[in-house]
Amino acid sequence: MKLSYDSKYQLKESFADFSDFLKKHQDWTGWLNLEKLSEESLIAKIIEKSQYIRENCDVFLLVGIGGSYSGAKAIIESLKGYFVDSKPEIYYVGNSLSSEYLFNLKEKIKDKDIVINYISKSGSTLETKVVLEELEKLMAEKYEDSELQKRIIYTTSNPEIVPEGFDYFLIPNNVGGRFSVFTPVGLLPVAVAGIDIRELLDGAKAVDQDLAKEYALFRKKMIESGKEIEAYVVYEPKLDHLLEWVKQVYAESLGKNNQGIFPAGLVNTRDLHSYGQYLQEGKQNVFETVLVVDEKVEIMVPAYGKNLSEINKIAQKATTIAHQERVPNLIIEVGILDAFKMGQLLQFFMLSCVMSGYLEKVNPFDQEGVEGYKKEMLKLLT
Amino acid sequence: MKLSYDSKYQLKESFADFSDFLKKHQDWTGWLNLEKLSEESLIAKIIEKSQYIRENCDVFLLVGIGGSYSGAKAIIESLKGYFVDSKPEIYYVGNSLSSEYLFNLKEKIKDKDIVINYISKSGSTLETKVVLEELEKLMAEKYEDSELQKRIIYTTSNPEIVPEGFDYFLIPNNVGGRFSVFTPVGLLPVAVAGIDIRELLDGAKAVDQDLAKEYALFRKKMIESGKEIEAYVVYEPKLDHLLEWVKQVYAESLGKNNQGIFPAGLVNTRDLHSYGQYLQEGKQNVFETVLVVDEKVEIMVPAYGKNLSEINKIAQKATTIAHQERVPNLIIEVGILDAFKMGQLLQFFMLSCVMSGYLEKVNPFDQEGVEGYKKEMLKLLT
Repeated sequence: MKLSYDSKYQLKESFADFSDFLKKHQDWTGWLNLEKLSEESLIAKIIEKSQYIRENCDVFLLVGIGGSYSGAKAIIESLKGYFVDSKPEIYYVGNSLSSEYLFNLKEKIKDKDIVINYISKSGSTLETKVVLEELEKLMAEKYEDSELQKRIIYTTSNPEIVPEGFDYFLIPNNVGGRFSVFTPVGLLPVAVAGIDIRELLDGAKAVDQDLAKEYALFRKKMIESGKEIEAYVVYEPKLDHLLEWVKQVYAESLGKNNQGIFPAGLVNTRDLHSYGQYLQEGKQNVFETVLVVDEKVEIMVPAYGKNLSEINKIAQKATTIAHQERVPNLIIEVGILDAFKMGQLLQFFMLSCVMSGYLEKVNPFDQEGVEGYKKEMLKLLT
Repeated sequence: MKLSYDSKYQLKESFADFSDFLKKHQDWTGWLNLEKLSEESLIAKIIEKSQYIRENCDVFLLVGIGGSYSGAKAIIESLKGYFVDSKPEIYYVGNSLSSEYLFNLKEKIKDKDIVINYISKSGSTLETKVVLEELEKLMAEKYEDSELQKRIIYTTSNPEIVPEGFDYFLIPNNVGGRFSVFTPVGLLPVAVAGIDIRELLDGAKAVDQDLAKEYALFRKKMIESGKEIEAYVVYEPKLDHLLEWVKQVYAESLGKNNQGIFPAGLVNTRDLHSYGQYLQEGKQNVFETVLVVDEKVEIMVPAYGKNLSEINKIAQKATTIAHQERVPNLIIEVGILDAFKMGQLLQFFMLSCVMSGYLEKVNPFDQEGVEGYKKEMLKLLT
């Protein structure tokens, strides 16, 4: 991984108290202890379970919302090629309350073999609970009890929700939802998709602390210069959900105390044809964080005597030049994305986000604000 | 359609000079002349061509970027159910420079019957041109010349790019890309998807001018109160691309003269678990425009004695209550979305956007800023 940005930004500041900051919040930093998360007994159990799932179903349903599904989806979509049939098919359910989605999904999968992974830290999240109840009806019609117990797997911090005889994975109490991608929350679905989770964890362990500090300092400069919006930019459409994951990590960790940067996701060159005009001539309240990956596939474009992947890189460089006067940008070059690099990248974003919390003097681990709509909802529902 | 917002906003202002404003920009207002766009001879030709396409291919490739594909994709995805197999399959190509996307797509479709609709107002847009050249190689391997001439259809304002013997549809010169959804740009692909384009156009004609004014005035209040970001919110995941279309219309029309509101798209309840915290406790620089549609499917949720669609509505109402102190919001209720309502909604957004341009004293029709990256790109490419 490599960061680059305008050399006029001098990013030097002490992180001397950062370890105290982490210590103060030690009830929430379990995800930093990757050695513990990747204990061989746990990893072996996850892989064994993922093999059972791969061999015993056509359809794998990941029932979860927010941090309970987003990391897995980001990894799977970013590493999977376009239009590649996966076995089992993976569907992400319970991240909306759309009845049409649920109805049509049930129609589509009713005659197939199904395994469900129900992921909920508290066990009580409304969206996933409602959807699980509906899917349980379908499962009960299809399978005997003994079979059912193998086909619904729970991932939770609250084992009390797990019915007797069913298998489950624990989410450590000291890991919050948006930081849980390297617990069974992310690891089991990612393993089901056939991705090497040991490589992924090795990547996370190899996170570059200095780069994470650099990015946090760059963000601080942007905040100080009055920027209000951070546009995360990619030039590869399949990285779209990776941006959704990044947006949650940053908005939910740092959007508090009347502070925070509003995160947006741009998929270029598509969005040069929507946001391009605003960035070039609109209000100067945006900075860009551009994620550049290398492509493995080469297609020669005779008109320019160049490969399409080179032309995509040129588009990124041209945009950087065109924007930089009004839209400061930081480029993150990743190389060819594989499981190792993916682990490194996700840990980089989580760690750097917490460093931003340290620099901005906010607690990046809580999310009291999310309770707002939940409370109003309970009032209206009951 | 119905708008609602906090009654403390008194939205009264004269639009007395609006017709002069339109007259001044009359070279760009062709899309307001829906009678002309829906002339029977043109509609009949579009429908005839769409029938030919539906009967003669498995795969329909819409090659276009920005306004050349976004409106059609928004309509098709919003009106199509989830997991519904469409015949022909529709793919949107040329809206990125990803070589992996293009390579894998070619692998997937190479043995199927294909029709291409190449959509480019100028005819020279780099992304679509490069992709067309690559797809032409595949087509030339599959089809004789006479067959090829039926299977590549051009939609452009520049008929000079159309090779002899090939069929094409004209984009009127006085309709800009992001306003072109009711020209053959949007109508042909939408008809290929089996949607009634006469209903769609009837809906557009039935646009409510007063509601469009009200929304433009609400936006003006938000700008005056210092808001920087407009979050367009839906509670139905399949409306995701509709938000992409809206974002282009507003960012590209109004992001100029150092002005403009940064548009963002939120798909709830998913994004309550990412942006929710920021909206509730972060910087108070956002307002919300919430698009509410009714669902046709009913799934009873015994735990609450309510249908899932009611629970989704309750989530929307609870969020409105929870946010409104810090995040002002305007609710647009559409009812059950059909082709007519869709036409009405898209015309509402385009018309109200131009009214915003009038109120904010910017020309909403040009997009000089988009040229920035294109110029830099040509320098690097040649």
